[in-house]
Amino acid sequence: MEVLAIGNALVDVLATVTDEQLAELGIVKNSYELVDEETADRLYDAMPPAVEISGGAAANTTVGVVSLGGTAGFIGRVRDDQLGAVFRHDLRAAGVRYETPPARTGPATGRALTFITPDAHRTFRTYVGAANRLGPEDIDEGAIAEADVVYLEGYLWDPPAAKDALRKAIGIARGGGRRVALTLSDPLWVTNWGHEFRELLDNGRIDVLFANEVEVTTLFPGTLEAAVERVRSVCPLAAVTRSEHGSIVVSDGETHEIKAARVGDVVDTTGAGDLYAAGFLYGLTHGADLARCAELGSLCAAEVISHVGGRPEQSLAELVGAGS
Amino acid sequence: MEVLAIGNALVDVLATVTDEQLAELGIVKNSYELVDEETADRLYDAMPPAVEISGGAAANTTVGVVSLGGTAGFIGRVRDDQLGAVFRHDLRAAGVRYETPPARTGPATGRALTFITPDAHRTFRTYVGAANRLGPEDIDEGAIAEADVVYLEGYLWDPPAAKDALRKAIGIARGGGRRVALTLSDPLWVTNWGHEFRELLDNGRIDVLFANEVEVTTLFPGTLEAAVERVRSVCPLAAVTRSEHGSIVVSDGETHEIKAARVGDVVDTTGAGDLYAAGFLYGLTHGADLARCAELGSLCAAEVISHVGGRPEQSLAELVGAGS
Repeated sequence: MEVLAIGNALVDVLATVTDEQLAELGIVKNSYELVDEETADRLYDAMPPAVEISGGAAANTTVGVVSLGGTAGFIGRVRDDQLGAVFRHDLRAAGVRYETPPARTGPATGRALTFITPDAHRTFRTYVGAANRLGPEDIDEGAIAEADVVYLEGYLWDPPAAKDALRKAIGIARGGGRRVALTLSDPLWVTNWGHEFRELLDNGRIDVLFANEVEVTTLFPGTLEAAVERVRSVCPLAAVTRSEHGSIVVSDGETHEIKAARVGDVVDTTGAGDLYAAGFLYGLTHGADLARCAELGSLCAAEVISHVGGRPEQSLAELVGAGS
Repeated sequence: MEVLAIGNALVDVLATVTDEQLAELGIVKNSYELVDEETADRLYDAMPPAVEISGGAAANTTVGVVSLGGTAGFIGRVRDDQLGAVFRHDLRAAGVRYETPPARTGPATGRALTFITPDAHRTFRTYVGAANRLGPEDIDEGAIAEADVVYLEGYLWDPPAAKDALRKAIGIARGGGRRVALTLSDPLWVTNWGHEFRELLDNGRIDVLFANEVEVTTLFPGTLEAAVERVRSVCPLAAVTRSEHGSIVVSDGETHEIKAARVGDVVDTTGAGDLYAAGFLYGLTHGADLARCAELGSLCAAEVISHVGGRPEQSLAELVGAGS
């Protein structure tokens, strides 16, 4: 297996809203917040008609890797309920190996209420539910030992048991000479847990770091250039994404600035970072040079923002073949 | 309330498949079959990644009526599970009155596995689940007494308790001088229950009949012209839909042939008949002449086949305003 991802198992509940509707709900546009079940239910009641599409950041990445022709697995927790069955089905049907047993008790399968505004931006209110109950017992040592890259979702770095699970995965991966990749996921997570992310980096536990420019400058306050140099000093390889401005890849003495791929209409930016990581990791595990890794990331991100939902709707293998 | 619909409460599970994939699953293209839960689970396991969108034929019609600016309610049964909550949310969020209490025991909320082929045709395998358990106790007498038109979904004409529910609704509506509309839903239903549908028509229980050309010629075998004349003799008003060939409306001495509205790309024909009925019934309850009723039906059908899913994605009021 080339990429084994560990992250929140979530079903996205997507609705299109106006800026005014979002304001009436008292929600700050472009924000990401975890909410309890009661708040999620209240917001859902006030939400326009929606569609349900399986999501979860790292799970989206695994679907992208498989769509490119690679092999991927996912570790994450759902409950044994209908949305859990939907999540499991969609991931397996996409060709991703997924064996984490569903919880039989406790909170329901997590869901991300996703409000899409006409400018294609999205605002999340996520009830993580069962996803947050991942623990060290869910870490499949055999799967990690055979993965080229173990990809960790920062969003999962929150409850103590989930952190223990991620630390266990890091330990197994590094012990087996596997590479560990981490995405910082969200500026809020960096605000809350930046000291622990920095500790992981300082201790040489992370081989590949993914972050967008807000996350990286929250992790290392100052200019983007200074933050990128700090990242270079603590991590062998990092990709900093900059939306329509492309991405910056740094590795030891190398620096590459890669343009964003061209897109027709941007419909929904959900999954942009997840699919960038998919393209990048596919390239990395297939011997591509770093510039090509980033280019693959840009192409995959461009596909996923051209439609609603965080998973590709067309064969990424064909797309990047045609685009190369 | 202008339109009160009674039908199967279903969540659509939609995936795009090739003709070859459909054949491998042993499924005849364009067919509609009810399946048990075990078969539904087996087919779902073999289905590509899917999206979940609330559906149900008559429920889609109510959403269309409201989107046109009308008022509508729905009676249909879900269970108190996650997909039931999704169905309830989407219907209410669309502005449809929906008060049928969810079942607390028995089968899960029904779902329609919908296989969309590249020619935009769809093939259904439906597990009706809780929807099939509708009974006379679910018929809200007050709601029916205040509805201009009570619209009955033929798909629900199957289990004895559901038939009793529909017969009860017909009785209340007719007793209160309300109009009763019936859609034949599917040729298979006409094959199975045509004798009972003909009995309803012969006894003057149906004021408005909706059928496509296959359904009407299954109900009254022979040429389309002969079937239409038979319908004219037993029903005050009928609309026979003919896909891209438009529709025929007959009422006493009047006959109107109306063209289909033009559509860009046909993406998914799910909901075409449901939204035709929405436009037609909106026109009927707002005093439009019959030709305009049919034209409104065509415009609404054209919108819903331009995207995936059986419910409108844009304001139908704006659409028909712009198209008139």
